[in-house]
Order: sequence, then C-alpha cells, then structure tokens
Amino acid sequence: MAVTLDLNCDMGEAFGAYTIGDDAAMMDLITTANVACGFHAGDPAVMRRTILAAKAKGVAVGAHPSFMDLYGFGRRRITGDRPEDLEAQIVYQIAALRGMCAVLDWPMTHVKTHGALGNMAAEDPDLAALCVRAIQAVDPTLVFITLPYSETMTAAEKAGLPVACEIYADRTYDDAGTLTSRQRPDAVIHDPAQSVDQVLSMVVDGLIPTVGGQKLPVQAATLCVHGDTPGAPETARALRQALADAGVAIAPFPTASRPG
Amino acid sequence: MAVTLDLNCDMGEAFGAYTIGDDAAMMDLITTANVACGFHAGDPAVMRRTILAAKAKGVAVGAHPSFMDLYGFGRRRITGDRPEDLEAQIVYQIAALRGMCAVLDWPMTHVKTHGALGNMAAEDPDLAALCVRAIQAVDPTLVFITLPYSETMTAAEKAGLPVACEIYADRTYDDAGTLTSRQRPDAVIHDPAQSVDQVLSMVVDGLIPTVGGQKLPVQAATLCVHGDTPGAPETARALRQALADAGVAIAPFPTASRPG
Amino acid sequence: MAVTLDLNCDMGEAFGAYTIGDDAAMMDLITTANVACGFHAGDPAVMRRTILAAKAKGVAVGAHPSFMDLYGFGRRRITGDRPEDLEAQIVYQIAALRGMCAVLDWPMTHVKTHGALGNMAAEDPDLAALCVRAIQAVDPTLVFITLPYSETMTAAEKAGLPVACEIYADRTYDDAGTLTSRQRPDAVIHDPAQSVDQVLSMVVDGLIPTVGGQKLPVQAATLCVHGDTPGAPETARALRQALADAGVAIAPFPTASRPG
Amino acid sequence: MAVTLDLNCDMGEAFGAYTIGDDAAMMDLITTANVACGFHAGDPAVMRRTILAAKAKGVAVGAHPSFMDLYGFGRRRITGDRPEDLEAQIVYQIAALRGMCAVLDWPMTHVKTHGALGNMAAEDPDLAALCVRAIQAVDPTLVFITLPYSETMTAAEKAGLPVACEIYADRTYDDAGTLTSRQRPDAVIHDPAQSVDQVLSMVVDGLIPTVGGQKLPVQAATLCVHGDTPGAPETARALRQALADAGVAIAPFPTASRPG
Repeated sequence: MAVTLDLNCDMGEAFGAYTIGDDAAMMDLITTANVACGFHAGDPAVMRRTILAAKAKGVAVGAHPSFMDLYGFGRRRITGDRPEDLEAQIVYQIAALRGMCAVLDWPMTHVKTHGALGNMAAEDPDLAALCVRAIQAVDPTLVFITLPYSETMTAAEKAGLPVACEIYADRTYDDAGTLTSRQRPDAVIHDPAQSVDQVLSMVVDGLIPTVGGQKLPVQAATLCVHGDTPGAPETARALRQALADAGVAIAPFPTASRPG
Repeated sequence: MAVTLDLNCDMGEAFGAYTIGDDAAMMDLITTANVACGFHAGDPAVMRRTILAAKAKGVAVGAHPSFMDLYGFGRRRITGDRPEDLEAQIVYQIAALRGMCAVLDWPMTHVKTHGALGNMAAEDPDLAALCVRAIQAVDPTLVFITLPYSETMTAAEKAGLPVACEIYADRTYDDAGTLTSRQRPDAVIHDPAQSVDQVLSMVVDGLIPTVGGQKLPVQAATLCVHGDTPGAPETARALRQALADAGVAIAPFPTASRPG
Repeated sequence: MAVTLDLNCDMGEAFGAYTIGDDAAMMDLITTANVACGFHAGDPAVMRRTILAAKAKGVAVGAHPSFMDLYGFGRRRITGDRPEDLEAQIVYQIAALRGMCAVLDWPMTHVKTHGALGNMAAEDPDLAALCVRAIQAVDPTLVFITLPYSETMTAAEKAGLPVACEIYADRTYDDAGTLTSRQRPDAVIHDPAQSVDQVLSMVVDGLIPTVGGQKLPVQAATLCVHGDTPGAPETARALRQALADAGVAIAPFPTASRPG
Repeated sequence: MAVTLDLNCDMGEAFGAYTIGDDAAMMDLITTANVACGFHAGDPAVMRRTILAAKAKGVAVGAHPSFMDLYGFGRRRITGDRPEDLEAQIVYQIAALRGMCAVLDWPMTHVKTHGALGNMAAEDPDLAALCVRAIQAVDPTLVFITLPYSETMTAAEKAGLPVACEIYADRTYDDAGTLTSRQRPDAVIHDPAQSVDQVLSMVVDGLIPTVGGQKLPVQAATLCVHGDTPGAPETARALRQALADAGVAIAPFPTASRPG
C-alpha cells in the first residue's frame, strides 16, 4: 500500500501593511494551510486572500486560533482568562474563518492551535479539553491537528474528535514522545538527510526515534512545514522531493468535511 | 389589523473589564439585539454571554459590524481601506457572530451596521452596496436594518436583500426623509409625548412627519432604543408602555432565518 | 511626633468610550494617583484629563505601567517577552506619562507597577530588578511604591531607588509579610473596624499583624485605596475619617521630585 | 558657500514579530531618522533598538507620530476625535520617544507627522496648528519637518516653531508648490537623472520646478528618502552619490536641541 503524508504550513500571518513568510511560494509546496484568524496574526482581508489562494491550488484550509496577542505573535504564554472566555475566543476564531470559507466556497477541514496556546494545551489536560470542546461546538467533523503523546491528542480521542497526528522533520523527540526541549543542544536537526530519515521512520515504519534510543509507535498524518524561516520554500521543496523519491505520496489527510 | 413594532437595541458593547450600558435591564424591554462583533466593542466572551441572555429572553440576535476601531467605539469615520478589504472585515464580523449563534443554538436573524460605518453607508451608494454584498455573501436571508430614504435601503432593495426599516423616537426628520443633522437645534426630541406621537405616525399611519411640515411614506418595522444613555431602561420602559397603550404590539420583525 | 499616611489609588483607567471607577469622587479622597499609561487601560486623552484633575486637587501623580494587555486589563500573567523588550515597554510608559506631566506642569513623583506585572515582579528577583532599572533609567529620584517583604522592595533598596512601602486595609498578611493568598478564606478583611485596626498597627506601631499571629516590622508609607469597587468613594471616605479620628495625618509621601 | 542637505527616512516601523524596511542598511545612508512611536508602527523595543542604531551611526532622531492605527499603518484618514484628544495623542507619542532618547543619551531633535495625519495637517490650518501646539508643548526647540507651501509650515512659522522644509526627489510639484496628486500620471518621477535635477534645483537654486512650468522659491533643508520600497537602499545610495558628485554636502539640518 502506498504511504501518504500531508504537508501543513502556517499561512496568512500578514497583518495590514505587514507580511511574514512567502505564502505564494509555500502554497505550491503544501497540501494543508493553517490560516491565522486575526488574533496573533492575520486580518479579514488577509484571510480572504489566503483562502482564495488555497482554493486556487487545491490546498486544504483550517483555522489556526491563538491567544489574542498580535504584539507577541501568539508566542507568549498568557494565563488568567476564565476558561469559558478562552473557549469563546477559540470558537470565535474558528467560526470567523469557517464563515469566510463558506462565503468563498472552499471547505474548512481542520483546526491547529497556534504557538503558546498550542504548547500549553499539549501539556495541560484541562486546556486540551477546552480546545476540543471549542472545535466540536463549531463542527464535530473538523480534524484537530495534534502532536503525538500530547494532552491535546488524548483529549481529542477521548471526545471522539478526529485527529491528524503531526510530525516534525527538524526537531528531535524525547522518550515521552514529545518534542525535545529547545534548551537541549540536540533539540534541532540541522542535517537534511537526518530529517528525511526521521520522517520516513515515522511515516513508513510508524515509529518515532527518540534521543534516548527508543522507538515509539505513531500514526503520522501530517508534517509541519515552516514558512517563516529564511529559505523556507527551498527547504520545503527539498524535503518534498526527498519524500517523493522515497515513495511517499504527498496528499491532504482525509476529512469528513472535505467532499470526496 | 393589529399594528406591530420591533424594538432593537445595540447590545454586548462591553470589552474585557469594561462595560457600557445596562444590558441585563434592556434585554427585558427589547425584541431585537444588535450584538457588537469585537471591532468597535464586544469580545468573544461578551458575545457568548449576550447571545445566551438574548436566547433566555427570546430576543432576536443580529450582527452589529463596525470599523475596526475600539478606541473610537466605531464612531470615527475612517477612509482609505480598499473596498474588498472592508468587505472582508464585515463578512468576518457577521460570520463570527453567526458561528457563535449556531454553537449556542439561537438563530442570527439580521445585520445592523454600527456608528460611522452605518452613517457613511447610508450616504454612499458604493459603500451601501458593499455592505449589502457582505451580508448576502454570508446569508441572503438575513434582514438588513436600514434607515428610510437611505442609500443602504436602496442598495438592499436593489439586490433583493430583505430590509427592516428603522425609525427613531427621539430624532426629527428632514424633508429628504433622513435624520435631521445634529447641528440643528431641533434635531433631538426631548418631549416624551412628542416622541410617542412621531412613532405612532410612522407605525400606524405609515408617515414620517418632517421638520419642513411634510409627511413622507414609510414602512416602519423596528424602533431604535438606546441602551447607553443615563436612565435608558426607564426611557425604554415608558416608550414601550405608551406604544402598548396606543394598541401597538411589540414583537420581532419577521425573518426567513427565524423558525416560525 | 505626628503619624502621616499617604492614600494612593489607581486612576485614569478609562479607555475611549469606556470608563472604570469614579475618578472624580476618588480624587477628593486620595493624596496620590497611579495613572494608567495606555497599556492595560488609559489613553492619552484620559491621561491628560487625569493629570489635570490631580493637579487641581493637589494630588501627586505617578505612572502605573503594565503589560500591554487592554483586553485583560493587565491582570493576566504574560511570559515570553525578552527582558530588554519588557524593560523598554516600562520605560516607554513612564516616559510618556512623565512627558505629559511636564507639558501640564505637574510633577510626576513615583511609579507603581500594575496588576500581573506588579504581582510577578513582587515574586521574581529578576523581574523586580528589571522594573527598578526601567524606573531609574527615566529618573532615579522617582519613588517606587512596593509591597513590604517583596522582591520589588528588595531590588529597589539594593539599587538605591527610593521606595514607599504600601499597605492594604482589606487584605490579611501571612507570616512571610506578604498578602495572604486569595485562595484562603481569611484573605480579605470585611470588617471596617478590623481594617482600621490593621492600618493603625502598621502605621502607628510599625508592625504587620499576620494570620499566624506574628508582628512583622514595617515602615508603612502609603495605603492602597480601591477605586473600581462598588461604593468605593464611601469606603475610602470612612477609612479616611477613621484614620483622622485616630490622629493619623493624610498627606503624600515625601519625594525628591516634588518641589518642597 | 557649500550647499548642505539632510536625508531623512521613516525608521523603526517594525512591530513585534513584523518588520518593514531594511533599517540596518538605511541607517548608513541617512542623516535623520523619523522614528515610529507605537501608534501606526513601532513598539517600545523597536524604538529602543532604533534609537541605539541611530546613535551608533550619528543619525539624528525625531518622533514620527501618527493616528492610532496599526492596522492601517497610519495611512487611513480618521475623523471624529476631539481636537484636545488628538493633541494629547501627539504629545504622548513625542513624549514617549523623547523620554526613551533621554534614557539612551541621544538627543531627540525633531518631529515629522506620519501618513494620513501629516497629509491632513498639511491641508487643514486647524489640524496644523494642533500639531504645532503639541510639539511646542513638549519642547519648543524641536524642529518640525514640513512640506513647503503647506498649512503645517505656515502654522509652525506663525507660532515660532523651527521648521525644516522637506523636499521629494521622486514626486513632482504642482503650481501651488504642493505635491502633485497621485491621481495624475505625472505625479511620480521614475527617471533617476530627473530626480537629481529636481533636487539640485531645489537645494542649489532654491527653486521648485512645477508641472505648470513655474519656479517657486523654497528653502530646502531635508530630502525624504523612502525605506520601505523594494531596492530602497540602492536607490538611496545612488541619490546620495549623485548629490555628492554635484557638490552637495549631506549633513543633518541644524537644531537647537542638538549639542554643537
């Protein structure tokens, strides 16, 4: 059986006169776009343009909700919101993008939480459950892109929300199956060949190689592709080619909300 | 035949720790709530609470989109946006509220533009058509609350978008059928009895009395009730009673999106 | 020797069309105003009006810097800023208010950190030192209002920055000399007589009574008066009267930047 | 006598994770930096870095206040603020940058209004006078960079505020001495040689050549150099060289606040 992998990338992170990343180039290289919803980045005009560009290339679109933190680009941890208020913020963002997708006649297929919100939810069962509730409230057929061995994946599976397990090519994994802390010198993989090997292990063999020498089972569905680093399109292009050479088909992950 | 009138009020204009207006008191007195969408006021948590409060009282909910202007409360005129960008802003706001209404299982029935956006659209055919397009793109059965003899009403009727004609009790009208400029000393009606007489003329007789002594035809559907002035609930209560005494039934205007 | 106490209150926390607290009433009751600088609350117009009102009443003015968090009113903990960036944010706020005070010819005498920034700095020596550096960079004669037995007080004293030790009338203290956690049932003092007793102990005897039965030495300089709770002016008036009855003189704490 | 010209450029227009323009390259090519103050662009950390970079290169620093409009980058016209509120906004921005300059021990020498605020003030005597008042309130020795034949220049001269007359290399002038409307096909000069000729006419001969064939007297002090267009550093470098070749010395305009 052919092995298939989705390539997802954070897109639509411009704001007003500001731009980040080369969305036009990346849109040719990915199969799934996580679109900022105006809280950490993005604005309605950017969202509109990004949905239209994704539609033109047949790229799947999902919401990329975040803390309300334009200044910090959603990367700062913010605590103190009442849970129901934070849940409303996530619903708002997903609903706004979903409505714009409907207007532009392109399905919204998934949700991926951004930055600090995503990191905190991956560690905190209550926050993870809150995110799952917010997604299911809008549309229970949406797919939640989550990290393996994370509280978000656990919460989604418990609630019956479809998940797409996300892997990284340029980050190592610890023995708990989570990304190695960036404090450690071996957190980032700089060698492209090693990156490809790690991805193939996860996608073809279904095993995460850890820094402790273990092999942990994983059902990899989508690979996170960075769009805002220097040379991002070139890196993505090389990775895509290496995967194709290894017989991996690049295609969106299956979803109920995408017409067959 | 019984005469019916809707009472609409801008609601959900709190933001974070800030509040404006006595929404709890007003919700008992009105039949339609125009809910701020986070651009001039409101935030997702406030939107959620406002929709739930409206649902509990059987009050119809609509979107109240605005320029992105929290500091100016949407009252400042802002020019220079590209039309498609401004249209995306309006779509975003309507879509966000509509999605939150769906989550909370309460229909969103209408749209009323806020403040400077509403005033500018009432005067400018292009901006009026832009607003109509944004509403129709989200849901062509939504009702657009518009002033009589305005470009917004003209644009809506031309495009086949349902309208609810909105009247004021405390503002006089000029011979063009539009609200008398606030520059004029006779712009505001301070006498409650005169307010009631004006409303009855518009609702029962279907005629707007103008400061020039004319009577202009009007199909009044909804009366704008202020919620953020001192004593707003008392004023609304007295007006409501006077209308009831005159045999006017207070009920939401009919809409396609509200289940019969 | 007569005992003197300053009464400080957070002021100027309106924003655009939004207001919080009855600043006009409070300005008659306090001797020191901590003025929001536009990050958690306040805007330039509000700052201008607040400085002018303070000047008219002879109330001392200081900066009340915060995290950049209007939505959360500066009450949410935000982590992830680079220290030098956060320091620049604090310098910016103090400098902006100081410049406006100079324009309006009324001295800026002090700084009090707001909300989550203040709470975090009181616990974290690095953040405390950062705040002290920011204040000293703008003007080393500014007084830093800090809690007793806090990292902020320690950092200020170490750096030679003048401090004014702030006490609370309605909060109990634990044996470490810090405010009792709000998780505990005895965190808040509801009995006005007990509040006055606690203040007199701190001001007249120089001793903090703790929930563990200890008496910790303190050089109380200023009492925090709340302005945004229901009945705030009445509470402040009663406290002020009780202190006067006990022979405590109400006056601003001494500062180098206030002309004698 | 040697002819001298200042080169000014808008700088520090990054915000959080967003950047605009190649400030590092431009800082080597200009003599005066107009630094964004956090309203249309810029944040305290960016302001700090920009002041330090200017100081390292000996570049003069001034405030570049704007409408509070991050989304619109200060380019949208906003009306409806009370004059005293808008004046407070301008004072706030100038005061914040000035305070940060003082902390970093580099003088703030001037003010240039940004975008829509600048354009509107150039046309409107009341708004021009408001800007002049705001500047003088902070420091009457600051130099106001203004366009020739503008209301801002008139207001500044009337009030005794020092001005530096700003010229453009790539824009034509109409017979009123103001920039030709961008609606006209001849608004922009695309030929570098023509740009240099125009600048030399204004700087050496003191005459503005107009599209109507006139020559209007001008005391050109500073040339606006764009930093946010593609190839901006190359364009600036070429212009700088051409001016040097023609014997024009590049140096900051004289100011009272810059130590001799």
